[in-house]
Amino acid sequence: MRVSPASRPTTKSPRTGRRPGTSSTREAILHAARRQFAEKGYAGATMRSIAAEAGVDASLVVHFFGNKPSLLAEAVEWPFDPAEAVPALLADGRRNVGRNLVALVVRTWDEEGTRHPVLTLLRAAMTEPQAAELMRTFLTEKLFMPLLAELGTDRPELRTDLAISQLVGLAVVRHVLELEPLAGLDATRVVAIYGPTIQRYLLDDLD
Amino acid sequence: MRVSPASRPTTKSPRTGRRPGTSSTREAILHAARRQFAEKGYAGATMRSIAAEAGVDASLVVHFFGNKPSLLAEAVEWPFDPAEAVPALLADGRRNVGRNLVALVVRTWDEEGTRHPVLTLLRAAMTEPQAAELMRTFLTEKLFMPLLAELGTDRPELRTDLAISQLVGLAVVRHVLELEPLAGLDATRVVAIYGPTIQRYLLDDLD
Repeated sequence: MRVSPASRPTTKSPRTGRRPGTSSTREAILHAARRQFAEKGYAGATMRSIAAEAGVDASLVVHFFGNKPSLLAEAVEWPFDPAEAVPALLADGRRNVGRNLVALVVRTWDEEGTRHPVLTLLRAAMTEPQAAELMRTFLTEKLFMPLLAELGTDRPELRTDLAISQLVGLAVVRHVLELEPLAGLDATRVVAIYGPTIQRYLLDDLD
Repeated sequence: MRVSPASRPTTKSPRTGRRPGTSSTREAILHAARRQFAEKGYAGATMRSIAAEAGVDASLVVHFFGNKPSLLAEAVEWPFDPAEAVPALLADGRRNVGRNLVALVVRTWDEEGTRHPVLTLLRAAMTEPQAAELMRTFLTEKLFMPLLAELGTDRPELRTDLAISQLVGLAVVRHVLELEPLAGLDATRVVAIYGPTIQRYLLDDLD
């Protein structure tokens, strides 16, 4: 939904226009949304409270983002660029892709902690079907489909679900339930334990 | 909290008494709680709405169960008796304990579907620290500590967290996010895929 540099100025809508203030208003709404989703959770933050914090009318939030699930989707900043991440995961060959993927995910979460927007999305997905659908699309399109296309293994959809099941479970135990000793375990140990699981789900024969 | 058959009658409190109506009132509250937690989720059901459905005053719900997390903990019916389950998991030796555990869990969930009380507890645990603590205690004391004591492996707390991370992730993908194809995968296939993961987490060398 970002305005590309090639967009030509028009007065039709703020989304396609380049009028002064449009992109800063949009950013102000996203900033307020990120803060409120992290602090209050998906259910606690409202379009109205986000608009108030951004200093705009709620109708403008609707105009820019449509509805709350879409606003959440835009507010979640994917923490790495898939176009760079996928080649990096495969940089030392297929045999380390499981470890590399766990390392990428664990380090990203550990840096930002329990308020990471992806964790907000995960919490919301537990009760909101629209958020669950967003998370699915997000993980599948941004990460697993490009990765599995490179790996060329059979049944990419099932392998995606298997890897998501372990990574989501790890996120839940480490950052939501915060079960010890796993919550405090060094990232290197987490990678050593979970790397082989993800490796098997992505590459081994499943039948 | 159940009144054991050996309890001697007293008029001190309904919890220790055997007066007619006490246990049926308690059961009526639990029945209403199970229905409402399943239908409305943890946040949607209130002590008041549960009391209303059970036809009692809200103060009686507090008297019997204390607070909402405790009521949830009592309402979650552990779907098997650990005293029987643990020996059954080990019936064909240590080499099949991973598969047996996954089979037990998957079959239990598949029977009751998305409204299973354990899934209600899991959803609640995502946002309510008290529910997260209950879930942890529940899984650890009822299942993993007795099982790992039998297995005799090192680091039982870490192994418990690892197994929970995969089983919770499987529950989330299959019954909450309902990602296909995993959500619709035959239980036998699920056991074949996840059995080796749990086996490794419970028994293999982690260092």
